Amino acid sequence: MLRTHNNGELRLNHINQTVTLCGWVQRSRDKGGMIWIDLRDRYGITQLMLEEGKTPKEILDLSRTFGREFVISATGLVVERLSKNDKIPTGEIEIKITELSVLNPAKLPPFLIEDETDGGDDIRMKYRYLDLRRNPVRQNLILRHSVAKATRQYLDNQDFIEVETPVLIKSTPEGARDFVVPSRMNPGEFYALPQSPQTFKQLLMVSGFDRYYQIVKCFRDEDLRADRQPEFTQIDCEMSFIEQEDILNMFEGLIRHLFTQVKGLDLGEVSRMTYAHAMKFYGSDKPDIRFDMKFVELKSEEVDLVSGKDFVVFDSVNTVVGICAKGCAEYTRKQMDELTDFVKRPQIGAKGMIYLRYNADGSLKSSVDKFYSEEDLKIWAEAFGAEKSGCRPGDLILILPGDGNKVRKQLNELRLEMGNRLGLRDPKKYAAHWVVDFPLLEYGEEDDRWFAMHHPFTSPKPEDMKYLETGELGKIRANAYDLVINGVEVGGGSIRIFQKELQAKMFSVLGFTDEEAKNQFGFLMDAFEYGAPPHGGLAFGFDRLCSLFGGSDSIRDFIAFPKNNSGRDVMIDSPSRIDDKQLNELKIRTVV
Amino acid sequence: MLRTHNNGELRLNHINQTVTLCGWVQRSRDKGGMIWIDLRDRYGITQLMLEEGKTPKEILDLSRTFGREFVISATGLVVERLSKNDKIPTGEIEIKITELSVLNPAKLPPFLIEDETDGGDDIRMKYRYLDLRRNPVRQNLILRHSVAKATRQYLDNQDFIEVETPVLIKSTPEGARDFVVPSRMNPGEFYALPQSPQTFKQLLMVSGFDRYYQIVKCFRDEDLRADRQPEFTQIDCEMSFIEQEDILNMFEGLIRHLFTQVKGLDLGEVSRMTYAHAMKFYGSDKPDIRFDMKFVELKSEEVDLVSGKDFVVFDSVNTVVGICAKGCAEYTRKQMDELTDFVKRPQIGAKGMIYLRYNADGSLKSSVDKFYSEEDLKIWAEAFGAEKSGCRPGDLILILPGDGNKVRKQLNELRLEMGNRLGLRDPKKYAAHWVVDFPLLEYGEEDDRWFAMHHPFTSPKPEDMKYLETGELGKIRANAYDLVINGVEVGGGSIRIFQKELQAKMFSVLGFTDEEAKNQFGFLMDAFEYGAPPHGGLAFGFDRLCSLFGGSDSIRDFIAFPKNNSGRDVMIDSPSRIDDKQLNELKIRTVV
Repeated sequence: MLRTHNNGELRLNHINQTVTLCGWVQRSRDKGGMIWIDLRDRYGITQLMLEEGKTPKEILDLSRTFGREFVISATGLVVERLSKNDKIPTGEIEIKITELSVLNPAKLPPFLIEDETDGGDDIRMKYRYLDLRRNPVRQNLILRHSVAKATRQYLDNQDFIEVETPVLIKSTPEGARDFVVPSRMNPGEFYALPQSPQTFKQLLMVSGFDRYYQIVKCFRDEDLRADRQPEFTQIDCEMSFIEQEDILNMFEGLIRHLFTQVKGLDLGEVSRMTYAHAMKFYGSDKPDIRFDMKFVELKSEEVDLVSGKDFVVFDSVNTVVGICAKGCAEYTRKQMDELTDFVKRPQIGAKGMIYLRYNADGSLKSSVDKFYSEEDLKIWAEAFGAEKSGCRPGDLILILPGDGNKVRKQLNELRLEMGNRLGLRDPKKYAAHWVVDFPLLEYGEEDDRWFAMHHPFTSPKPEDMKYLETGELGKIRANAYDLVINGVEVGGGSIRIFQKELQAKMFSVLGFTDEEAKNQFGFLMDAFEYGAPPHGGLAFGFDRLCSLFGGSDSIRDFIAFPKNNSGRDVMIDSPSRIDDKQLNELKIRTVV
Repeated sequence: MLRTHNNGELRLNHINQTVTLCGWVQRSRDKGGMIWIDLRDRYGITQLMLEEGKTPKEILDLSRTFGREFVISATGLVVERLSKNDKIPTGEIEIKITELSVLNPAKLPPFLIEDETDGGDDIRMKYRYLDLRRNPVRQNLILRHSVAKATRQYLDNQDFIEVETPVLIKSTPEGARDFVVPSRMNPGEFYALPQSPQTFKQLLMVSGFDRYYQIVKCFRDEDLRADRQPEFTQIDCEMSFIEQEDILNMFEGLIRHLFTQVKGLDLGEVSRMTYAHAMKFYGSDKPDIRFDMKFVELKSEEVDLVSGKDFVVFDSVNTVVGICAKGCAEYTRKQMDELTDFVKRPQIGAKGMIYLRYNADGSLKSSVDKFYSEEDLKIWAEAFGAEKSGCRPGDLILILPGDGNKVRKQLNELRLEMGNRLGLRDPKKYAAHWVVDFPLLEYGEEDDRWFAMHHPFTSPKPEDMKYLETGELGKIRANAYDLVINGVEVGGGSIRIFQKELQAKMFSVLGFTDEEAKNQFGFLMDAFEYGAPPHGGLAFGFDRLCSLFGGSDSIRDFIAFPKNNSGRDVMIDSPSRIDDKQLNELKIRTVV
């Protein structure tokens, strides 16, 4: 080793030892008579000290040539500091330098290597290797390592076996777009990169592996958003001879273990909620339940407190639904306008927002006073009362009119916005719950056909199988479940189909011809004929889980070398053109 | 859970408990009055028992419909067996069945699901999910899991951080052929799949990660052999502020830990050998040192005991080199012919083999008696004597003439063959050693240029840097090392270049123009300017390491879903054609 110690470990008990340290020059302070250098590595910072008249002149001179981020080696005696620094663990000592050398000089970095940097996103991505030197970024990746380690620890203890499944697999048109890989040895043919190891883990269950997991890279060629990457990592799991309840318990156990190990937190109760409940009361299949603010319906299939008063906006829609914002009755006109603008943004798309102020003095004031009497409004306020959302004088009721789930999703956005404004979404507080009983299928208007909401291997609930026969496909609930933490879907899965006939039926419902089903998934249906056990599983989005643990919204901060929104790695400048020789060998041409 | 216990855990202390088991019917024996069923899962086999007159008739009838590999659920009472089976851990008990149901029937498998199967390679690969049910195959994958787990344990304890590096990277022409991935979002451009995370792990060192590892999939589009797969797994490691000695010690520690944890074995001394020594005495850069049988030179740059006797075969070559096979003086004519045929096989390519029998009575008999006197032969035998290879009466000396390292490589094959024949290569015995001081460069006759023997990032030994100036490039030794166990290269690595100028020089020596170097590796050379620490590392071939631990030559046996020699997965039938829609989106055409 070029060093005897790292920069995070020296303490008072090392005093009088001669040590050699290596690292990066964080900063250098030259006070004329004294020079102090902060030497940094992954483990910490140690202060080096040089003294005019005592330290040999050539060493003093050399030390004055050091710029930020120079890589140096320093030998000296550990001494007690006169003025101690209690902000760093090595703050009680410093090194009285006797030897010094430059291992590698450094150009001035294009941005500050500090916790708070002056570098923008683009420059930090181009020089990601410098960005990774910064404490917060490195800590994110160390956190990621801890989460992986604790995951393996739990699953190993529960008899899961990690099995690597192939990366070069077969393209299947169902689901998102595949990345493909031309095969040189099989000209005209392509591998695909897996969107998940789904079929392989099911085959491992057919093989009797009983409990499988893998922390594994997956790939989706989708248009990217801030929280999407073309390559991402999953904690992928599958179990045999289980029912849904077993999966929920097993992985509630995992998430609880991760919180204890990584965050030192007891997660508390992991509650359960049906999809139907989540949509009705939160307008989302991944509600953030750190705060309550449940929806109250003024008009729906079950209730109508608004129609027939000549207010055409409410008369012409099938759903009027609102939330109660505690203590916001005094919101200013400006604040109300902000909220209206918020829900009218094209990403949300509400037509407008109606409010009802429940003033502190008990009076009611709405934006639709023209149509509704004080008596009418009182009925509304009562609907938001004790049982429903505990609306009281001083609160503000925000109402959106619209069409079923569409307006509910709009109101969900408003609810989250109000949660933010009212400080109800503390990233240091965690609330986890399962959403269960998802619909098996959803209708795609555009393609005029049914799609699997989860994937084609998800099993319907036995009691809903009758709707397969009656054709009421939208009524079929699936044995499918998502784990939601703080409004983020961190994982999801299902109990799988394990019978060939049912799987074939499902492909047919999804519009596969028999030939297409056989061509794409014949191996799986064959496997089901040779003794497939009942099985199910789930996958966690590992990047997202890490960002949640790190209290950040961006998964990119938890990936060592992420890609930008155009799928580019700007550091290595990839993707890039390849040689004609390569194209010729692969027997492909580009047609751009 | 659909079961209360698994099939491997019931013992005498469970007697009188009512249990429910699930699993696969391994076999069923119907003795008229009694029926026994062996129920199998990953954990073991438990015997179920049904009795005419006691077990309800419908259960008996149902049990008679079970074929091999049916998936069933069985409930009953744990009872002590009358005739115990000490070959299985559950052999003292059996289950007196009270309930029975079929979870999934099974067609008759196309081959026997037994330790010894009747299925050939092709059918087992097509039905790999059935092959994986067999004990030896599943055990291989469980072993693989253990090796990974023990690897992580060791490296975690040594402060290594596992960091995931990207799979979609940039194609670089140096080295083996890349798999490429067309980018839809960047038409005409391609990602490449990594042959190793080499540059990324070096960047992590520049970032100050200090100690990195990753168990990671890598990809090479090469023509395949039995021990090669297009996708394979590496244990990839890198350290900063170290010298070669530190790497050797750290990873000798890892391999020792793996042997203790996984095999329960003390590996013994891990010796060291220079590349020059390995080539001179074993004709291989990965000698199997479980047995001695070192080469002895009869003609070389240093010695000549054979020329000038009118034997043109020896006169016309620069190297005559042989081995001593202990106790083989009595080899028959047939055996000698077999060996001659062996070395003449095109894969080996020797012109012929000369032998010298050192008979038990001390007399010498060679295949070239016409040219060499008893006196000459005595000199040869002495050359093979005490110090060199301990040749004694009763031994057989086998000699090959030829050209430098070419003939040495031929003799290496013969040495290994003799090792096999003499039972000196026991797969249960392990001998590990480092081969160090590899040449930095090797000359490619075909391309008439120098190639990096390891890769372009390997650093030359400081004392050999002078040859960079003199142009004697073949003389430069690298700080590169391989770990060899039982003649298998299980890992290798190097101390890296970390200075921009030297890296640029190296690219230039390898025939890169400045522009090519900048275009392909500019990011790395830039990184070296911003404070790169001295660093180095290595990678282990994880599949090969597992096969070594499993005592097998084939890595395929240790991969869940391997590809065949044409790079095909015959189970899922991949690679395959893709939709024109996909090709259009990717802006590529196939030209087959």
